[in-house]
Amino acid sequence: MRGAVFHAPGDVRLEERPAPTVVDPGDAVLRTVATCVCGSDLWYYRGITPFPESSPIGHEYVGVVEEVGGEVATIKPGQFVIGSFFASDNTCANCRAGYQSSCLHRELMLGCQAELVRVPLADGTLVATPGEPAAELVPTLLTLSDVMGTGWYAAVAAEVKPGATVVVVGDGAVGLCAVLAAAQLGAERVIAMSRHETRQKLASAFGATDIVTERGDEGVARVKDMTDGVGADSVLECVGTHESMLQALRSTRPGGNVGFVGVPHGADLPVEELFYSHVGLRGGPAPVRRFLPDMIERAWDGRIDPGRVFDLTLPLEQVADAYRAMDERRAIKVLLRP
Amino acid sequence: MRGAVFHAPGDVRLEERPAPTVVDPGDAVLRTVATCVCGSDLWYYRGITPFPESSPIGHEYVGVVEEVGGEVATIKPGQFVIGSFFASDNTCANCRAGYQSSCLHRELMLGCQAELVRVPLADGTLVATPGEPAAELVPTLLTLSDVMGTGWYAAVAAEVKPGATVVVVGDGAVGLCAVLAAAQLGAERVIAMSRHETRQKLASAFGATDIVTERGDEGVARVKDMTDGVGADSVLECVGTHESMLQALRSTRPGGNVGFVGVPHGADLPVEELFYSHVGLRGGPAPVRRFLPDMIERAWDGRIDPGRVFDLTLPLEQVADAYRAMDERRAIKVLLRP
Repeated sequence: MRGAVFHAPGDVRLEERPAPTVVDPGDAVLRTVATCVCGSDLWYYRGITPFPESSPIGHEYVGVVEEVGGEVATIKPGQFVIGSFFASDNTCANCRAGYQSSCLHRELMLGCQAELVRVPLADGTLVATPGEPAAELVPTLLTLSDVMGTGWYAAVAAEVKPGATVVVVGDGAVGLCAVLAAAQLGAERVIAMSRHETRQKLASAFGATDIVTERGDEGVARVKDMTDGVGADSVLECVGTHESMLQALRSTRPGGNVGFVGVPHGADLPVEELFYSHVGLRGGPAPVRRFLPDMIERAWDGRIDPGRVFDLTLPLEQVADAYRAMDERRAIKVLLRP
Repeated sequence: MRGAVFHAPGDVRLEERPAPTVVDPGDAVLRTVATCVCGSDLWYYRGITPFPESSPIGHEYVGVVEEVGGEVATIKPGQFVIGSFFASDNTCANCRAGYQSSCLHRELMLGCQAELVRVPLADGTLVATPGEPAAELVPTLLTLSDVMGTGWYAAVAAEVKPGATVVVVGDGAVGLCAVLAAAQLGAERVIAMSRHETRQKLASAFGATDIVTERGDEGVARVKDMTDGVGADSVLECVGTHESMLQALRSTRPGGNVGFVGVPHGADLPVEELFYSHVGLRGGPAPVRRFLPDMIERAWDGRIDPGRVFDLTLPLEQVADAYRAMDERRAIKVLLRP
């Protein structure tokens, strides 16, 4: 079967690789229907975060179950399924607390930009859709695997409540999905920080009520202006840089919350400032599994359409082009068809 | 009237000073019944945090109202009152959100180790007791002004819930009050980190179910052992050092919460570790005013007796001795009688 392999920064290739098989009795093997390139893959592609050379890459997937191990009870061959980028048993103490991405037996999914994927802990990881989805629904279902689940977690971690004023820092796929999540959770006002016209438009379509183009201190000042000088109730940090963390912290009202889902790169938290801010903070890799059943229902009903973040679709053969397009910011997010 | 004046690190003296008067129409002037020395005063006393020379010091107080300004509506002369170390209007957006210590018009109380104290924004700051308290209740009422309110906020910020497993880092007056608050909020298990026998005893009397004497990595390992390897639901950080912050963070389960109320000194938060921990974090100077009515009721009914943290009582004349006793850790907390 064919799968993407990371050779070095800037060098991802589609290659013939051994087909994955059931190794443990809890495994499932899927034939992918769609996969994609993540903003976090770019950290490797750009050589900022190390990645093992000559390793399979990709962690977002939807597909049809081909085969399951002897201990798999709920997932069956032929089902269309979605899973998170962390496999989880969904039964340990951390899973029961809703933090499946901290599962005591978690396994990071890798090698999902491929035709076939082995999913460990299949019963705890995969959720089947109510039936075979229409082709046009596939992009939306694929986002639930990571970016939409991550945007959703940002909103939950920032404790977005009905009627709230919410700021979203970051207009990548996760930030746009975070706008959608905040609107779904009942936010009255969703302020998207964005200076790219196409992304602004998508943010508005997803429920942003205001767009702020200023950044840094000026961005904070604009948010304060819009919130009677006190700041927003919830701020969703979807970038991970030092500047974006500070902007998020400083845009939040005392007693408000920051949910931070951008993987931190060089971010440094001024502890004294955090202390005096009275801002609550929670972040981390999204426990996507917690939100999957609810998100699938919303997608199936047509209440959410996060698949619109894909602005380029390529055949899996062109995985190298997909990375380039995202690296050069020519695309928000690229969907790959095996 | 006589009041304590900070001259230099290690040099606090009781001096004759001008009697405070009503300056603004929202002011009240109190005759203090009791005041005390705070752990945070020691940062100044030890020269670690700068304090303006020849300035009145002290921020904890209970007393009887002597005089009020023309715009004071709810507070009346003769009432026994308690207020926080931050005066607040209790009407602005931040106060309404429950963060009176971030009041848009807040004023830090200073000069409360004195016979008379001017309290700005009296209606928003002071809460009267149901009547004149018995003398033996005064120490408990005095703790509500800061240490008990701060311990309560630590528990609330760490989202202590009925049935929870809670860890308290720090066995000073605030830490001990935090143990009491966690127990009052229904924690099933309260693990106090302490290696001082008298403090351990008081922690147990306040509701600690377990005592851990280990610190740092060993302390974290002990807590993990006691919590099926995952960590505590809520951890109350009542010290403010780098070591205590790390210990708190690492003792918390994924999805759990740290409430941090120790004023940070040299603390540095490893952002990546915080991210992957899934731990929620909220801190700051306690919005004591939010908790005063409830805490007064509990104290009045005898449900809480945090006054036991005072293990030394001195006349206000001996304020210098009071600082020395706390600096040398001969006393947990010293009550001063004007």
